[in-house]
Amino acid sequence: MAERVVIALGGNALGNNLPEQMIASHQTARAIADLIQEGYEVVIAHGNGPQVGMIQNAMTELVRSDPEKYITVPLSVCVAMSQGYIGYDLQNALREELLDRGIDRGVATVLTQVEVDPEDPAFRHPTKPIGAFMSKEEAEKLVLERDYEVMEDAGRGWRRVVASPRPVSIVEIGTISSLVETDHVVIACGGGGIPVFRTDGHHLKGAAAVIDKDFAAEKMAEMLDADYLIILTAVEKAAIHFGKPDQEDLSDLSCEKAREYIEAGEFAPGSMLPKIQAAVQFAESKPGRRSLITLLEKAAEGIAGKTGTVIHT
Amino acid sequence: MAERVVIALGGNALGNNLPEQMIASHQTARAIADLIQEGYEVVIAHGNGPQVGMIQNAMTELVRSDPEKYITVPLSVCVAMSQGYIGYDLQNALREELLDRGIDRGVATVLTQVEVDPEDPAFRHPTKPIGAFMSKEEAEKLVLERDYEVMEDAGRGWRRVVASPRPVSIVEIGTISSLVETDHVVIACGGGGIPVFRTDGHHLKGAAAVIDKDFAAEKMAEMLDADYLIILTAVEKAAIHFGKPDQEDLSDLSCEKAREYIEAGEFAPGSMLPKIQAAVQFAESKPGRRSLITLLEKAAEGIAGKTGTVIHT
Repeated sequence: MAERVVIALGGNALGNNLPEQMIASHQTARAIADLIQEGYEVVIAHGNGPQVGMIQNAMTELVRSDPEKYITVPLSVCVAMSQGYIGYDLQNALREELLDRGIDRGVATVLTQVEVDPEDPAFRHPTKPIGAFMSKEEAEKLVLERDYEVMEDAGRGWRRVVASPRPVSIVEIGTISSLVETDHVVIACGGGGIPVFRTDGHHLKGAAAVIDKDFAAEKMAEMLDADYLIILTAVEKAAIHFGKPDQEDLSDLSCEKAREYIEAGEFAPGSMLPKIQAAVQFAESKPGRRSLITLLEKAAEGIAGKTGTVIHT
Repeated sequence: MAERVVIALGGNALGNNLPEQMIASHQTARAIADLIQEGYEVVIAHGNGPQVGMIQNAMTELVRSDPEKYITVPLSVCVAMSQGYIGYDLQNALREELLDRGIDRGVATVLTQVEVDPEDPAFRHPTKPIGAFMSKEEAEKLVLERDYEVMEDAGRGWRRVVASPRPVSIVEIGTISSLVETDHVVIACGGGGIPVFRTDGHHLKGAAAVIDKDFAAEKMAEMLDADYLIILTAVEKAAIHFGKPDQEDLSDLSCEKAREYIEAGEFAPGSMLPKIQAAVQFAESKPGRRSLITLLEKAAEGIAGKTGTVIHT
């Protein structure tokens, strides 16, 4: 049976703006097509930082241009838009790359909602700045009128901050699974997924939050019973003593050792730390599961055991 | 075997802005759930006029706010965003309505590209105004710099106009079909689909166009071998001598008769005409296929033969 792989694509796989995204998505497509060509079943999750930022900024400018006519667009809706935006580019680039190689496979973007827990401690300490810089007056207005949390960002102005809670479940997992079973390459959980709360039974409500795409990919990998979680990022291997003269790249990392390094503060929060945490969580979720952290263009080499950091129990 | 239905939802099924959309999507969900509860396999296409207009306007304001940093977002990308935006709301409303009725069924939004023909005569006569009103100077700049077509719109300012070509094929039809076969309720071809051209073989390129959602739904109904095309709109029945003292509502309309009325100019272009044309095209595409035009809330009654205009060979 084909091994199943969930890939988490970092920001560098998509670029920071529209022209960059068009180039980056083709490079990304080549790296992913390498895995498909080798026989892996592939499901892709991706980040959306620059894209959802652009959409948020555009919606802010729209309201500024005509405050009588337009109302603020919720963050969950902006994430939904970003899934359409990125999915369109990525599924097209991937479809083309596969057809160029003579592989005629359906490539599908599934609009994905990811459930979060309203009691998640992250909601008590929002940390993630999003959207446009504002004046202090604009920021105070949003705090009063919309109950936003805001912070002053390094002297550059005020920004909204939102929580980054952990994913609890993926609403459309059955759809994703059906498509994988019918031989599709699936793009899902874009931007970590549209964050939703479950209210009274089965009703869902958009949450003002962003979910880390590495944790969303981890959750999806568990729910799809994947064999591998591959986190593609800007370095070939995770390292300890990162950026110091005695930096040591890691090739083989047990979950036990990873925990030690985490406790010793070896991995940067908001950067390598969540990747290592997600990798450990997946490797420990069931015997035989492994995680890989490496560069986008090294994905195929990494899964062949030739490079990258492999995290295992 | 369950009868298969493709529904085309008109603008009134989604509302003109965010608060309206949240209310409208629940009413729409009830009407669609009625059909699902009666055992029909349902696939939904929808319009996106107000939503893609809002997104276009937001992107225009973004570029106005910082022309150094941002570039104009292509129309195809705006359509992709609108599929995320509307799909999120609609799939959620439908999922809730079905669960409220004890029906646990996957509801999926498939990001859909629809192929158009670069030789379509519509490209020589763009007729569809989109996006924000501009000054004459702004409009002339776009003509020069981006090769846009523009027109003066009823004294209210200048607007961009784009072509409305006919759909040739649906790129993701295999995905849509897989999901229907695995018992999903599918939302696809949002806003008529993301318009694309096929270039050198299998490569696709975004087109500056909007595809009529009734024709996209018709194409999808043909390609999915549906039994019914249901076009939901603001009137219970199509009519001749519309709005005149001798208005005559149509319950049963043969394709032959429909053609006569079309030639006599009975149906308004951009309104009832494309609906009748799409309905006739579907009814004539294979023996046994029928089309229905009626009010959103009359969908179930209409398919039971109690109201609406049925179009057949």
